[in-house]
Amino acid sequence: MPRIIFLPEKKSVQIGAEATLLDAARGAGIPINSSCGGKQKCGKCVVLIKEGIEGLPAPGPEEAALLFKKGWGPSHRLACATKVSCDLVVEAPDKGLGKERILTKAQLPFKPKKIKPVIETYRVEVPLPSLSCQADDQTRLNTALKDAFGLKGLEADPFVLRDLPKAIRRESGKVAVLVRDKGEIIKLLPGSASPPFGAAIDLGTTTVVCYLLDLKSGEELFTSSSINPQIKFGEDIISRISYCVQKPWTGLKELQKEVVDCINRLLEQVTTKIGASPGEAVEMVVVGNTAMHHLFLGLDPQHLSLAPYVPVVSDALNVKARELGINISGSAYVHLPPLKAGFLGSDAIAGLIATGLYRMKSPTLLIDLGTNGELVLGNRDKLMGCSTAAGPAFEGGHITWGMRAAPGAIERVRLESSGVTLETIGGRKPAGICGSGLISAAAELLRLGLLLPKGNFNDSSGHPNFRKGAEGIEFLISPAPDNAVGRDIVITQKDISELQMAKAAIWAGAKVLSEITGLSPRRVLLAGAGGRFIDPEDARTIGLFPFDEQTEIRPVGNAAGRGAALLLVDRGYRKRAMKMAKKMDYFELSGSRAFQDFFVQGMFFTGATDYSADF
Amino acid sequence: MPRIIFLPEKKSVQIGAEATLLDAARGAGIPINSSCGGKQKCGKCVVLIKEGIEGLPAPGPEEAALLFKKGWGPSHRLACATKVSCDLVVEAPDKGLGKERILTKAQLPFKPKKIKPVIETYRVEVPLPSLSCQADDQTRLNTALKDAFGLKGLEADPFVLRDLPKAIRRESGKVAVLVRDKGEIIKLLPGSASPPFGAAIDLGTTTVVCYLLDLKSGEELFTSSSINPQIKFGEDIISRISYCVQKPWTGLKELQKEVVDCINRLLEQVTTKIGASPGEAVEMVVVGNTAMHHLFLGLDPQHLSLAPYVPVVSDALNVKARELGINISGSAYVHLPPLKAGFLGSDAIAGLIATGLYRMKSPTLLIDLGTNGELVLGNRDKLMGCSTAAGPAFEGGHITWGMRAAPGAIERVRLESSGVTLETIGGRKPAGICGSGLISAAAELLRLGLLLPKGNFNDSSGHPNFRKGAEGIEFLISPAPDNAVGRDIVITQKDISELQMAKAAIWAGAKVLSEITGLSPRRVLLAGAGGRFIDPEDARTIGLFPFDEQTEIRPVGNAAGRGAALLLVDRGYRKRAMKMAKKMDYFELSGSRAFQDFFVQGMFFTGATDYSADF
Repeated sequence: MPRIIFLPEKKSVQIGAEATLLDAARGAGIPINSSCGGKQKCGKCVVLIKEGIEGLPAPGPEEAALLFKKGWGPSHRLACATKVSCDLVVEAPDKGLGKERILTKAQLPFKPKKIKPVIETYRVEVPLPSLSCQADDQTRLNTALKDAFGLKGLEADPFVLRDLPKAIRRESGKVAVLVRDKGEIIKLLPGSASPPFGAAIDLGTTTVVCYLLDLKSGEELFTSSSINPQIKFGEDIISRISYCVQKPWTGLKELQKEVVDCINRLLEQVTTKIGASPGEAVEMVVVGNTAMHHLFLGLDPQHLSLAPYVPVVSDALNVKARELGINISGSAYVHLPPLKAGFLGSDAIAGLIATGLYRMKSPTLLIDLGTNGELVLGNRDKLMGCSTAAGPAFEGGHITWGMRAAPGAIERVRLESSGVTLETIGGRKPAGICGSGLISAAAELLRLGLLLPKGNFNDSSGHPNFRKGAEGIEFLISPAPDNAVGRDIVITQKDISELQMAKAAIWAGAKVLSEITGLSPRRVLLAGAGGRFIDPEDARTIGLFPFDEQTEIRPVGNAAGRGAALLLVDRGYRKRAMKMAKKMDYFELSGSRAFQDFFVQGMFFTGATDYSADF
Repeated sequence: MPRIIFLPEKKSVQIGAEATLLDAARGAGIPINSSCGGKQKCGKCVVLIKEGIEGLPAPGPEEAALLFKKGWGPSHRLACATKVSCDLVVEAPDKGLGKERILTKAQLPFKPKKIKPVIETYRVEVPLPSLSCQADDQTRLNTALKDAFGLKGLEADPFVLRDLPKAIRRESGKVAVLVRDKGEIIKLLPGSASPPFGAAIDLGTTTVVCYLLDLKSGEELFTSSSINPQIKFGEDIISRISYCVQKPWTGLKELQKEVVDCINRLLEQVTTKIGASPGEAVEMVVVGNTAMHHLFLGLDPQHLSLAPYVPVVSDALNVKARELGINISGSAYVHLPPLKAGFLGSDAIAGLIATGLYRMKSPTLLIDLGTNGELVLGNRDKLMGCSTAAGPAFEGGHITWGMRAAPGAIERVRLESSGVTLETIGGRKPAGICGSGLISAAAELLRLGLLLPKGNFNDSSGHPNFRKGAEGIEFLISPAPDNAVGRDIVITQKDISELQMAKAAIWAGAKVLSEITGLSPRRVLLAGAGGRFIDPEDARTIGLFPFDEQTEIRPVGNAAGRGAALLLVDRGYRKRAMKMAKKMDYFELSGSRAFQDFFVQGMFFTGATDYSADF
């Protein structure tokens, strides 16, 4: 007897082959709505077949017509119409399915005011041909679109043409036509289809985030994220590039496949949540640093790691998703916004879009803190970017008790007479220190005179938490009994040195940009997962930036992801991004004498001081 | 021990795994040139690995560099450098390989005077990047192309971008850039690469012909043809469409795969002949009737067989070859010229291009005789087409001893006092009668009064070849002892009726076009394999056309193939074809009262008479 497993409950039931999926669901105690009583009329019992669909016969004409009319995909079936002929894994409809879409708590704190949609839906009625009007299907469709909406010269690729004859002969010729950028028909849907959706991908070296958005309203529908599975080939960009160089025929393909599979899995997750399938998404935007961009497209990344660090391509690209193995709709595109340089990627461009820096009057500095620090300084008149190798300290790397900004990471340290007070992510028992925790600790030690501006511990202060460890003096943050790791969590002199190197890189980069442009920023925007948790006061105390107290420091969260979402839904932003990337200047820090001078000065834990250097 | 088979000789040799392919060739007595003495310097020992390449390691750097420099493909190896580590099938270099290309005796009797090439080769030198000029690879390439040739805004798809970093870093940046239609870079080759080539395909219901052409000179390099393997799904279009309708999920895919595989096989044949591989071809044109066009593209053909017979699409299309499974170069296109109607395909448009009818001053009628007769009447001022179901008689179908125009087919019949004189294709012993032979026989019988204008045999004439057969009176053409089939070859009264139906369809179609346009053609051009062998005098005698003796009848051979070749090499012709297809009128004969009247009149075996009919 076939076995049916219902998700997400994972309830399993065996049932005779003549039973329907609706019978099976009832047998398993899964509530499935069926207001028409199993007559294939209401469509409320629609389910998503997760596994085993190849064993089912094709849907009958009534079922197929209903599935099509409702805009469901090829993996959907009506539970009342589906005979259980083989083992299946089935996702039963949740609250959202078949009704309105679930809106998660917005992880993207934005909603564009007025959208110029990239994908627009035009509903027309295409007349049937006759012996006196023998115009072909495409011509009749285009004529209808021209007459009703003034659209001209629309193209359609063979995959759309393959759907065309059926699509315009159902529902008496009523059809919803999805047009991209006013130029290409990318999908034909039943006349009553709901607004289209698409996905914005923030492709980070460490984390991949997938935002599902309504392309008409710009509203966020669902979000999912995952570790970038390329991590098995190396944690940082350089080791992944080395892997490609070492395995010239296959390495790049392996890396590309990992990230494509990962995006497809995230797509499956977010679309399932709204009762849809990945094939129903009709547009995607992918932003990332230049190495991630190249690896995603299968472009040779090796020259990114060698001076003069040039990319293969910088311009925005539109690639059919099927060419990349991305499982969105057959003729849909993946849009890749422009990038600026080998180490200033489309994530930085997306960040500029999200923050609106390019239209600000006051000079502003946008920084994405990470292993590679990306900096852009400017305003509506000019923009200059640079990139600086900060090393992994801001991400918790190379730190004795360092960890990523994950639950249990110490993100804030305060010393009081009663002892050390810690805040951890998620309020869990301490498991390590993330980048913002390290900055917080250093700032607090500086404030209390326990750390000196040159970076050496002031152990002569006699503070009881100083002690001698295996590698010299260290400062106890969390004793073994209080934390999750069962050993003392400390900060070592070496950890402080790592932080000094990282902050010097940022400090010097910001200083160079400021000197060259002659702009003194009124505010610094801290972007990236790292930036979100840094206390502006702590940043100021350690002298992260070469600016005085007048300069506001403001964390802005995941600006790249937010920018990707804006670029997904709005074609105005796409044009803006292209213009901006062209107009912006880029200053190469490697080999710059001024940068080297500033770097040395930036090692000091001090606020703004007036330095000068040779350019 | 591995076994090596050398083609085309099919010589087989076994040899130890440390030996090279050059050793193996010598062992098998295959002469392979190697003027550098096996030092991987001269490249003369290049071979094409037909099978087993997956078992060979990648070429070493010296070998790879030489293969790349000479412009050879991924299936080529140097015999001197290739260790025999597994079973292989190898094509040894023939006279043409590695030298100049073999020019076959031209099967396309044309050579365009002045070409506006679709694919142009631009040779540039791309500077290496530096810290002071960090422009990306694509920008530096585009700048070089703009500076040297004024080319602007060139695009390149990700497949070209994947080759870009390597291509512009070899040969000190010297690269040959293949640009399509002045808009898109489709391939990067070494600076010294020879002119590009491409393939024109005449995709007939029965026969597929592949012409390989030099895209710079327009010269024909090689030709190959094959039976259309779709024939296993039915000899005619209608039965193939029925197959798609009966198997809605897979039928169309099966038919598409057959024809794609067939084209790939032909490509392999023609490119091997010039010592190249299919992946080196950089453009393809496919012409055919509308059903073949749709089946090739995977477009649902079912509405072509139902009134009002509308195609899915008529406009010219450019589709990346890889999207169709065609094995030409990764980013190359297949161009599909426009078509006019469900039964007036791009083959007819190609025929107009080849004959130049659209720029003639005198009214001219172009006819492609086949199961479906395609007719276009006009001149430089106007054009009107129609299509008429002639049935299979012109292709030897439904005829007692009918056969295709293949070796052994009777194509000319003369009655003399001494008896019947026959001419057969290839001068072989008679095996049957093809369309032109049937026309020739009918004409001769009419001239001698043995066949009457109404279509009945004049057996009262007492000619000794008349006799009573199983289905009434028949006329002996070739007695059993004289022919290849060992039975008497005859023409029956039924055969004559079939011919009458076929000719009436053509006669009536031509008459309708002439009446509607008010044009009386000065010449009739007979195209298609059928048309090539028809004797104009015979055509006149049976009254194939409703025109008087002033109208010249001229066979023009395979106009569709010739047109496809012109459309392959010249972008001017492509524009012309698109304009023409739009401008041309089409008259639908089905349901036309005038056509029905003329059809009845056209059954008579008489020359031009002045008839009239209601429109």
